[in-house]
Amino acid sequence: MDTHAFLNACRDALGAAHVLTADADKAAYLTDQRQRFTGQALAVVKPANTVQVAAIVRICRHFQVPIVPQGGNTGLVLGSVPDQSGQAIVLSLKRLNRIRAIDAVNHTITVDAGCILQTAQEAAVAADRLLPLSLAAEGSCTIGGNLSTNAGGTAVLRYGNARELCLGLEVVTPQGEILNGLRGLRKDNTGYDLRDLYIGAEGTLGIITAAVLKLFPLPQTQLTALAAVSTPEHALRLLTLAQSRCGATLTGFELMSDLCLQLVGKHFPQLAFPFDQRHPHYVLLELSDSESAAHASRLLEALIGSALEQEICRDAVLASSTAQARALWHLRENISLAQAQEGPNIKHDISLPISRIADFIAATDTLLQQRFPGCRNVTFGHLGDGNLHYNVAPPPDRPADEFLQRQTEINRVVHDSVDRFGGSISAEHGLGALKREEILRYKSAVEINLMKTIKHALDPLNLMNPGKVI
Amino acid sequence: MDTHAFLNACRDALGAAHVLTADADKAAYLTDQRQRFTGQALAVVKPANTVQVAAIVRICRHFQVPIVPQGGNTGLVLGSVPDQSGQAIVLSLKRLNRIRAIDAVNHTITVDAGCILQTAQEAAVAADRLLPLSLAAEGSCTIGGNLSTNAGGTAVLRYGNARELCLGLEVVTPQGEILNGLRGLRKDNTGYDLRDLYIGAEGTLGIITAAVLKLFPLPQTQLTALAAVSTPEHALRLLTLAQSRCGATLTGFELMSDLCLQLVGKHFPQLAFPFDQRHPHYVLLELSDSESAAHASRLLEALIGSALEQEICRDAVLASSTAQARALWHLRENISLAQAQEGPNIKHDISLPISRIADFIAATDTLLQQRFPGCRNVTFGHLGDGNLHYNVAPPPDRPADEFLQRQTEINRVVHDSVDRFGGSISAEHGLGALKREEILRYKSAVEINLMKTIKHALDPLNLMNPGKVI
Repeated sequence: MDTHAFLNACRDALGAAHVLTADADKAAYLTDQRQRFTGQALAVVKPANTVQVAAIVRICRHFQVPIVPQGGNTGLVLGSVPDQSGQAIVLSLKRLNRIRAIDAVNHTITVDAGCILQTAQEAAVAADRLLPLSLAAEGSCTIGGNLSTNAGGTAVLRYGNARELCLGLEVVTPQGEILNGLRGLRKDNTGYDLRDLYIGAEGTLGIITAAVLKLFPLPQTQLTALAAVSTPEHALRLLTLAQSRCGATLTGFELMSDLCLQLVGKHFPQLAFPFDQRHPHYVLLELSDSESAAHASRLLEALIGSALEQEICRDAVLASSTAQARALWHLRENISLAQAQEGPNIKHDISLPISRIADFIAATDTLLQQRFPGCRNVTFGHLGDGNLHYNVAPPPDRPADEFLQRQTEINRVVHDSVDRFGGSISAEHGLGALKREEILRYKSAVEINLMKTIKHALDPLNLMNPGKVI
Repeated sequence: MDTHAFLNACRDALGAAHVLTADADKAAYLTDQRQRFTGQALAVVKPANTVQVAAIVRICRHFQVPIVPQGGNTGLVLGSVPDQSGQAIVLSLKRLNRIRAIDAVNHTITVDAGCILQTAQEAAVAADRLLPLSLAAEGSCTIGGNLSTNAGGTAVLRYGNARELCLGLEVVTPQGEILNGLRGLRKDNTGYDLRDLYIGAEGTLGIITAAVLKLFPLPQTQLTALAAVSTPEHALRLLTLAQSRCGATLTGFELMSDLCLQLVGKHFPQLAFPFDQRHPHYVLLELSDSESAAHASRLLEALIGSALEQEICRDAVLASSTAQARALWHLRENISLAQAQEGPNIKHDISLPISRIADFIAATDTLLQQRFPGCRNVTFGHLGDGNLHYNVAPPPDRPADEFLQRQTEINRVVHDSVDRFGGSISAEHGLGALKREEILRYKSAVEINLMKTIKHALDPLNLMNPGKVI
C-alpha cells in the first residue's frame, strides 16, 4: 500500500488540516474511554460532511485501508478505537455536528451523526420537545455512536432504546455510496428494514452520518422517590404495581443494593443518605407527568401508600423539590464513580427477563461466593428494563490484583448464569472488540453464520471497523 | 423436477393428510382476501410445528421448489398467494397455533406464528395484560403475518407497529435451519438485529415460526370522543394539543372526512350520526387511562374544552358509556365497508410526516380534480401516525369502469405527490406483488441494491416467496 499516495488522496478530499498524522494529534483518538487499550492508526481523518465521508470511504476502498468510525469515543467495549496494527484510519464524525431540522408537529429532529447528544437534547427543549435518550456520557457522546451501539440509558423503560427512537438514517455504505433514508415517518412498510441493520452494528456495516429521531412532548413535571425494599423480589413486585397504576407515567425504575449506597456514602460523604436506617435494597422511581405537579404527587403518594400497606416496601422518601430529586438521582449516578474510587472491579452489563432477575441475583451471588469467597457484589441497574450492572469487587481484605487476574473465570460464572436465565451478556454497551469472542459461546452457530453472511454481503472487503462485533 | 418424489417427501415429513393437492382443497389458499387474484400451487402443505416447517424447507431446497408462506391470508398487497406458474407450494402456518407462554411480570407472551391475533389478545387479557396490536382482520389474521408485514392498526400512536411490539423471533431460514431468537429482553446489544430484518420482509428472507411479543398493563378505562373540525390543519392542531396534555394516555387519533361519514350513513343507516349538523372533518379520539374513569373524563373534558375555546374544534361528543364508545368506533370501522357498497374505488395506504398532512391533502385533492374532474376523495386514517387511507372514488355520475381503467394514472398522481411530501407509498400493508414494481420509482438505486444484496445473501436460490417485495 502506498501510504504516501493514500494520505495525499485524503488531504485532497478534506484539506490537509483535517488529516492528522502526528502522534500528538492522533493520541486523543486512539485510547478508549476507560483507558484500557491504546491502538495505532495511519491517520485520523475528520470529514466535514456526508459527501466527504463518502469520499474518504471510496479512497479507503481503493487503497484497501480499514476504517474505524468514531464519535465521542465514549464506548465501553473497545468498539471505537483501532487495533495495534497501525493499518487503519480513525474516521472522526465530530465535525458533522449540525442540527439539520426540528419539526415540532411531526415530533422529529434531524441531526448529523457527530452531534453531541446533549446538544440535540437542548435543541429539542428549545422547541418545547423532549429527546428522551439520556445516559451518563451525554455531554460528550454523539448521536452516531448512540445509534451504532443502540444506546440504552435511564429512560428506556418508557421511551425505548436508541433503536426505538430512530425513524430514519443516512448512511455511507462500504462502497462509498450515500443511502438517504432520512424519513420522518411512523409507518413505512416498503421493503427490508435497513435502518435497524445499521443501528447496533457498531460501524461494521456502514457509517451512520445523520438520523431522524423521535421527540415527545415535554412533561409538565417530574417526580422522584426513593423506596427501601427487603429483596430484589420485592423490588419486582413494586415494579409491577407501579406499571399497573402509573402506566407510561413511570419513566424510571432503578435498583441499587445497600453496598452501592454505602460506597457512595464513603466516597461522597457530602451526599446525604435519606433514611434513618440501612435497608437491603433501594429503588429510585421517577414519574414524568403531562398534567401537573399536583397530579403526579397524588399518583406517586398513592403508589407508595399501597406499597407500604402491602409491605412491598419498607420505607420511602418523596422528593419535594427539584433539588431533592437531583440529590436522589446523584446517589444513583455516583455509584460507578464511588466504585472506581473504592478500587478496581469486574463489570457486567447484562440483561434478563424481568421476571427472572431476583432468582438470577440469588443464584449468581451464591455461585460467586462459592468460587470466590468474600467477593462483593455491587449490583445496580435499570430494573424496569431488566438491565443490571452486575459488578463484582474483590474481597476488602485481599489484594485486588490477585482477584482481577481471575477476571476470565468470573466473567464465565456470571455470563454462563445469564445464559441459563435467558439473558444477554451485553445489554446496552455492545460487543466491540471486548466481547466479540465471548459472544461465540452464547449464540448459536445459525445466528453467528447469519451475522457473518450479512457482514460479508455488505462489506466484502472487511474494511468497516474490522475486528469488532463479528 | 420430479413432482411425484417431491410430494412424497412432503407426505413423509407431514403425513399425507397435511399435503393438499386436490383443487377443491387448495382453493381457499390461492385467492387473495380482496379476491383480485388467484394463483396456482403444486400443493398446500400444513406443518404442525417448527421442526416440520424446517423439514419442508429442506425438501423444497433439495427440489428447488419455491415456497409461499401463508398465515390468515388477509394481506392486502398479494403477498401471501402464489403466482400462476403452479410451481410453488403454499406453506400454511395455521397449525402452528399455540400460545407457548405468558410471563405477566416480564410483560411478554410467546406465541406460534399461526396463532390468530385475537386468540393472542384474549390470552393476554386472561393474564390481566394488554396485547395492543389491533386491526380490522384480527379475528382471522395471524401473528406471523402481522410480523411479516409489520402490521400497524389503531394503536400505533401509543404502542408502535408490530415491529415495536416484538422482542424475539424464531425463524426457519431458507437453508432449513432454525434460528432460535425467542428472547424476552428489553435490552440486548449483541450483534446484528436479525429480528427486524425478518419483520416486514413478507416471508422473502425466511419463515417466522414463533415470536415473543410485548404486553402492557390493562388500562383501567378507555374513553372515546368524536370532535368536529373545519380542516385537516385544525385536526393537526388538535393532535398536538392532545399529545401535549394527555401524553401516552392518548391511544387513538383517527381522521375522517365528512364524505366518509356520509357514505357510512347512506349504507349503514342504523348507525346514528352524532351531531346536529354536518362538519367538514371529524376526529375520533381515544384515551386509555391507568388510573380511573373519573380521571380520564376530567382529562378528556379539559382537552375538548380547551380545543373549543381555542376554536380548534367546532363541536364534540364524549361517549358516556361503552356502548356509545363502540357506536363512535363503528362509524370509523365501517368506512371501508360503506365504500365497498358504494362501488369500486382506488385505495392508497400512504404515510406522511404528520406536519405535512394538511398540505398534502390540499395539494393532492387539487391535482386529482384537475386531472379527473368530479372524482371523490374518501380520506380517512390514523392521523396520529401520519397514515392516511387516501381513497379515490369515481365521479357519482360517471361509469366506474371508465374511472378504474385509469387506476395507474391515478396511483401515479397520488404516489408522486406522496413522494414530494416525503412520505411512503405503503404505510402499513407492505409491498407484496402489488407494489413491487411501483416502489422502484421511489426508492434510490442505492437502497434497492442493498435490499437485493441482502435477499441474495440470505436466499441465494430465491425460493422464499419469490416475486414479492424485491
